[in-house]
Amino acid sequence: MPTYPPSTVAVIFIAERTLADDAGYAVAANAMVELASRQPGYLGINSARGEDRIGITVSYWADEEAAKAWRDNPEHAAIRDAGRNRWYSWYDLHVASITRSYDWVKL
Amino acid sequence: MPTYPPSTVAVIFIAERTLADDAGYAVAANAMVELASRQPGYLGINSARGEDRIGITVSYWADEEAAKAWRDNPEHAAIRDAGRNRWYSWYDLHVASITRSYDWVKL
Repeated sequence: MPTYPPSTVAVIFIAERTLADDAGYAVAANAMVELASRQPGYLGINSARGEDRIGITVSYWADEEAAKAWRDNPEHAAIRDAGRNRWYSWYDLHVASITRSYDWVKL
Repeated sequence: MPTYPPSTVAVIFIAERTLADDAGYAVAANAMVELASRQPGYLGINSARGEDRIGITVSYWADEEAAKAWRDNPEHAAIRDAGRNRWYSWYDLHVASITRSYDWVKL
């Protein structure tokens, strides 16, 4: 499991899924992970969604420029529009700069 | 859904639950949310865990001092030890300073 150096940019996306179009959403979500991983400055991603349909995705970027380039990626923008139209009832987005990072694994 | 002002501290906790002690874990997790919400400088929390048992919790704090006081809270430290002993197979923790924050709600 990774730690990240100080100044890594974490993009924290919290969203509630609507009840619509689970199949289309799953395809798009996988495509977005694949697309993000090919962006310059991509460092990693974590994602979890519970039975209440609230999910959190955190993506990690080498710097602000990399995070903004991902925001401005045209395929990402198109999927974001679809998200607002169909897949999400609300979302919060926080962009943050990592100051310290730890990991632990059971031995 | 909240946005947070710049310099809000986000504590990003990503962890895989072991198969052990779901009941004890649920009690402790609820107690931690309750305890955190009574700490000075607490602003909010988001949490999600999927069927793969990987969960993400993000807590939000007014400043570094508030986040560190939460880290050093003795009840929190005791639960953290229980987490390492019983509930988690690994975790990552990232402390980050929010630079910008957006929200969106379907109308």
